[in-house]
Amino acid sequence: MASSFGQTVRVSVFGQSHSAAIGVCVDGRPAGEAVDQGPLACVIAPPPTGGRPWATPRREQDAPEVLCGLNPQGRTCGAPLAMEIRNTNTRPQDYDNLRTHPRPGHADYTASVRYGGEQDPTGGGHFSGRLTAPLCAAGGVCLQVLERRGIRVGAHLSRLAQVDDARFDPVSVSAEDLAAPGAKDFPVIDDEAGRLMRERIDRARGEADSVGGVIECAAIGMPAGVGAPMFDGLENWLARALFGIPAVKGVEFGAGFAASDLRGSQDNDPFVIEGGAVRCATNNAGGINGGISNGMPLVVRVAIKPTSSIGVPQRTVDLARGVQDELVVRGRHDPCIAPRAVPVVEAVVGCVLLDALMSNPATLPEALS
Amino acid sequence: MASSFGQTVRVSVFGQSHSAAIGVCVDGRPAGEAVDQGPLACVIAPPPTGGRPWATPRREQDAPEVLCGLNPQGRTCGAPLAMEIRNTNTRPQDYDNLRTHPRPGHADYTASVRYGGEQDPTGGGHFSGRLTAPLCAAGGVCLQVLERRGIRVGAHLSRLAQVDDARFDPVSVSAEDLAAPGAKDFPVIDDEAGRLMRERIDRARGEADSVGGVIECAAIGMPAGVGAPMFDGLENWLARALFGIPAVKGVEFGAGFAASDLRGSQDNDPFVIEGGAVRCATNNAGGINGGISNGMPLVVRVAIKPTSSIGVPQRTVDLARGVQDELVVRGRHDPCIAPRAVPVVEAVVGCVLLDALMSNPATLPEALS
Amino acid sequence: MASSFGQTVRVSVFGQSHSAAIGVCVDGRPAGEAVDQGPLACVIAPPPTGGRPWATPRREQDAPEVLCGLNPQGRTCGAPLAMEIRNTNTRPQDYDNLRTHPRPGHADYTASVRYGGEQDPTGGGHFSGRLTAPLCAAGGVCLQVLERRGIRVGAHLSRLAQVDDARFDPVSVSAEDLAAPGAKDFPVIDDEAGRLMRERIDRARGEADSVGGVIECAAIGMPAGVGAPMFDGLENWLARALFGIPAVKGVEFGAGFAASDLRGSQDNDPFVIEGGAVRCATNNAGGINGGISNGMPLVVRVAIKPTSSIGVPQRTVDLARGVQDELVVRGRHDPCIAPRAVPVVEAVVGCVLLDALMSNPATLPEALS
Amino acid sequence: MASSFGQTVRVSVFGQSHSAAIGVCVDGRPAGEAVDQGPLACVIAPPPTGGRPWATPRREQDAPEVLCGLNPQGRTCGAPLAMEIRNTNTRPQDYDNLRTHPRPGHADYTASVRYGGEQDPTGGGHFSGRLTAPLCAAGGVCLQVLERRGIRVGAHLSRLAQVDDARFDPVSVSAEDLAAPGAKDFPVIDDEAGRLMRERIDRARGEADSVGGVIECAAIGMPAGVGAPMFDGLENWLARALFGIPAVKGVEFGAGFAASDLRGSQDNDPFVIEGGAVRCATNNAGGINGGISNGMPLVVRVAIKPTSSIGVPQRTVDLARGVQDELVVRGRHDPCIAPRAVPVVEAVVGCVLLDALMSNPATLPEALS
Repeated sequence: MASSFGQTVRVSVFGQSHSAAIGVCVDGRPAGEAVDQGPLACVIAPPPTGGRPWATPRREQDAPEVLCGLNPQGRTCGAPLAMEIRNTNTRPQDYDNLRTHPRPGHADYTASVRYGGEQDPTGGGHFSGRLTAPLCAAGGVCLQVLERRGIRVGAHLSRLAQVDDARFDPVSVSAEDLAAPGAKDFPVIDDEAGRLMRERIDRARGEADSVGGVIECAAIGMPAGVGAPMFDGLENWLARALFGIPAVKGVEFGAGFAASDLRGSQDNDPFVIEGGAVRCATNNAGGINGGISNGMPLVVRVAIKPTSSIGVPQRTVDLARGVQDELVVRGRHDPCIAPRAVPVVEAVVGCVLLDALMSNPATLPEALS
Repeated sequence: MASSFGQTVRVSVFGQSHSAAIGVCVDGRPAGEAVDQGPLACVIAPPPTGGRPWATPRREQDAPEVLCGLNPQGRTCGAPLAMEIRNTNTRPQDYDNLRTHPRPGHADYTASVRYGGEQDPTGGGHFSGRLTAPLCAAGGVCLQVLERRGIRVGAHLSRLAQVDDARFDPVSVSAEDLAAPGAKDFPVIDDEAGRLMRERIDRARGEADSVGGVIECAAIGMPAGVGAPMFDGLENWLARALFGIPAVKGVEFGAGFAASDLRGSQDNDPFVIEGGAVRCATNNAGGINGGISNGMPLVVRVAIKPTSSIGVPQRTVDLARGVQDELVVRGRHDPCIAPRAVPVVEAVVGCVLLDALMSNPATLPEALS
Repeated sequence: MASSFGQTVRVSVFGQSHSAAIGVCVDGRPAGEAVDQGPLACVIAPPPTGGRPWATPRREQDAPEVLCGLNPQGRTCGAPLAMEIRNTNTRPQDYDNLRTHPRPGHADYTASVRYGGEQDPTGGGHFSGRLTAPLCAAGGVCLQVLERRGIRVGAHLSRLAQVDDARFDPVSVSAEDLAAPGAKDFPVIDDEAGRLMRERIDRARGEADSVGGVIECAAIGMPAGVGAPMFDGLENWLARALFGIPAVKGVEFGAGFAASDLRGSQDNDPFVIEGGAVRCATNNAGGINGGISNGMPLVVRVAIKPTSSIGVPQRTVDLARGVQDELVVRGRHDPCIAPRAVPVVEAVVGCVLLDALMSNPATLPEALS
Repeated sequence: MASSFGQTVRVSVFGQSHSAAIGVCVDGRPAGEAVDQGPLACVIAPPPTGGRPWATPRREQDAPEVLCGLNPQGRTCGAPLAMEIRNTNTRPQDYDNLRTHPRPGHADYTASVRYGGEQDPTGGGHFSGRLTAPLCAAGGVCLQVLERRGIRVGAHLSRLAQVDDARFDPVSVSAEDLAAPGAKDFPVIDDEAGRLMRERIDRARGEADSVGGVIECAAIGMPAGVGAPMFDGLENWLARALFGIPAVKGVEFGAGFAASDLRGSQDNDPFVIEGGAVRCATNNAGGINGGISNGMPLVVRVAIKPTSSIGVPQRTVDLARGVQDELVVRGRHDPCIAPRAVPVVEAVVGCVLLDALMSNPATLPEALS
């Protein structure tokens, strides 16, 4: 099923950019978990004003409504938890030309071939970035379950328009470190890097162009021994799910591609005893050996390509007439979606980690009292 | 299931490094397909001599035996096709210390936690690189089905020990281009780059160390419209399966991580009409928009970390006594597994592409007569 | 996932008896299919009056709203199709004693153990028969796709309170035969049998008791060759899904349990040539050999146990105090749910058959123009 | 995948009647479990002599070889456990006419349509009853894990050729009761019923005909709370898997079809306190409410149709020439497969119960020391 992932904790996303509603169904979470509905919203529409494109203000209309899955006490009851977000603007307009003139970098053309021209082209339909909102809601529910067990997930903009942020310390990143970027206006560790990034975003906007970035996400508190060999390891599950976020074109764990430039003697993480526990002195593995967590911080980075919707005229084809044509994408588009993708990456990682813990439940820690 | 992947074409790998046999079961392929058993073997053991560590000589004992799945005419009969490779050296030895002294960079420690100390430690058990042999056999069967329909897959060492090979032309790579590296002693496009790579491998061996690399794989002939949005797209399936190859720490498509440094106006692939067909003028998307093939060459790169088994003394812990200790990994180990991983990447890509085509069968082309 | 079934056409049900809404997400149907929303409603609540317990009047509030999955032309767009039905009475009441006093024959006790007491007990929660409404909606969408391809599904009350209806002719049942029972006030072939059944239902109601029944469902127009051997055959998929309807305790195909009393010479269905096509002279197999359709009518029967909620005092336990107690189930309860389960069986069969056809798409016939 | 079942404990069967080998891969069992390979064999071929068709002598050549999945201590190591049985007679003969003359009651015709004539017709290919041997082996491994935790499974011939055996007491069946039938020459509770059954089998053989039967299987020791609502309940999983045994045409739980003839006041199982524990006074539910175990004995019955291969001439079609023809099935065929299906039913139930326990692992009891 194209729009679902997860083995035990299964997340199924539904909706199109301009359908009556978008939503998500999350099945398989533990029962008896409180759900704080406040943090489930996640900004999905382009920013209302061009002034703070990186800001992520809560917008009331994007708060998901919980349709089911809670007991009368408001805790999870074991049944699927479904949430929906009503779309307020459901009248398609200005999209007729997208049916015949596919936008470069978008799924307009491939969806048209895949579905014989029957896809919903308005606002990207089911391929819209708006579908990340239900993902955030699902992730929010899962992250609360994890947090209650001492597992924290955080992400930041590791790189944007060729500007590098600092990185999480892969060995000793703390809960505070993980939470800090998300609490800022712009989700970076180093504010000076953030300032430069915003300058480049502004410059791209001024030129009707766009920029991309890299998001780094880390999780701490994961017990060792979660995951499985070969195809159901943490890396496999995380990668499969993370490539479901629109615009992701690369995923790497720990040192990732840089590991391929290292010697084994540099890349191998020595095992050490710390406070009676087995730890690693370095963390090039990103907390995963053979698909299974080793107890070190889990570190993953995802590459976000630049926004495909840009104002500059682009070459495309007129599918109806079979000839070359030019396309100018109308409407206000965000010159960089990477900042808004930061909480989406956290959400997806949260869903996958809870799924991995629930699929191997001896490893699910007790809730901290 | 940790050792299976695929929705319609399902590949299930079994075996341990020193078990009686290793093997694979492939279910869901089309019926009526001839199987040439010759090319199914793939070298899995370290090279017998140190002289040509990059060479991939066929070794008779690694040729898989087909147990079932063919009809009396030798064509696929629709039932699962199972293959096995007998292990000739099944007496474990010298591995007792691995139970207590986990090798840095290996799954010894995580498997021990995951399986409560009951894992098979001999030769890495189920985590051994030897398990790539059945993967190659499964891939061989799938690649033959694809080839019969004009779909070709090829890979090469894109980078090794910081030496770059040339790259496949992402727009116009030909079947000959794809086949060329695999036909050489060392799977590169540019032989001078290959010479440098081998020098660095030799140097690492001389220093009891190891190096890593990047493998680039491309596929041509894929029709447009194969795949699905969100979590069952080609990128999701390929990434999930490719991270199942031991030592893979990163996966990227098209321009991948480099795309995050581009402007949208640079990254977007303009649609053009060529010979009456829709094509892209560039191919930064690696042939995939929104998880669905666009008809351009599919391009994926995977990062292979340096071999974890190195001869230099390493820090580890004595799990039995809970103290710090030193480990010297004995035995002859390959200072770089990336060359031998090249056909494994091709195999996995072949399995996934056939699965995607079979899962959306209107897109499976007729066999060329 | 407990509340989903289907491989290619995947049906995911969500909701509880008294949650804000119940609903269903159907993924994987073909694109470009018109959806007539009229017939998607299906009565789910107990009948408003006791006068016609077998009648199935449409109630406006049970008409599902389509949230997404259609393109601007109202045809399926390839994305998941989600539907919801708002619950109007979401204030739980009178159910507190169900948390401590499990109703015999219900899932109150097992859900309490399974979910550690966190289940939603109001109205049966996720175990409520009300959840068959979204199943009907999902089935309605699938049945329309099938009908457009000449595949018809129909069901009737084969037996109720020990009264037998006539049976569908397993060899020559027609589309008219299949449609007839559902068009009546009471879904039987033989109206005199129906009259007797209703008498027994009335008698059970008068005694605050309940009765059960058997539903027979048949499908015609299925091409031969759909299904698979062993565990993914039509029988496997149908049985797995049909046992998801509350109160189903048995499933049989063709002659079913009666086949076990036959000689092979009686049970084997001889192959014959009719009008140039391969047919069977009899149909004890119910249209399925080795899990694969043989082109004959598909025939399945499901046993529905008597309604568990009865007015007579029953023995149960007080879970809070760990002592024996007596329970009187309050509220108006339907003395027989079998009549209302008839369209649910049709719906589930419709979903499974479309899934089987889509999972082996060469067998999906073209839509009739 | 047609030949696999199970979510966490996944059983994948491979092989054809006359392929080099048949086998099974079992993934997801707990690690550290001893495997007694003795009881894994299960007779699969027709009995060597006609004298004791009901006997199940161990035949050396059918003992499965364990290929992998054990650690050097012989305990499960967490990796897939694969077993194979070599076929000694792999030269197909006398089967050419089956390609053109499908046997009534067999999958010859449907497989031919499904696989475009490429199926392996020799001995039924992948549809052969011989494939139940690997199922028995897989079940044997799972049953040992269950037994170690106090969960026992046993089956008997509940009915054969219209002769009824006694039934397991659904409320108080003991481990001894469950084990008794399997320890006899003929798997019944009541030996006089067994004598009559054998007479009818002999009579059918004498008339070149066959008879069918019903197998009843029960499990005790299952904790309450195992399973899930709707489509992943115990009934759903058991039914899906049991219909994978060749010749099964019906599955019912507890009172099953007979429940549909009861009043609710008769069918509902009252909850009672016994020895401080919640139990049921009766067990019409077969130990399952709402898909979840209630702690009572689990009771399931499966209908086995009469052997399709009979010596009397039968009508069939000549697919090559498209005309009516007559078929005489050659070779010695068992006039009743039901007795030999008894351990197969136990095996499948064992696999499913372990899977259900492992998929909800808090419910997997500790191994008894």
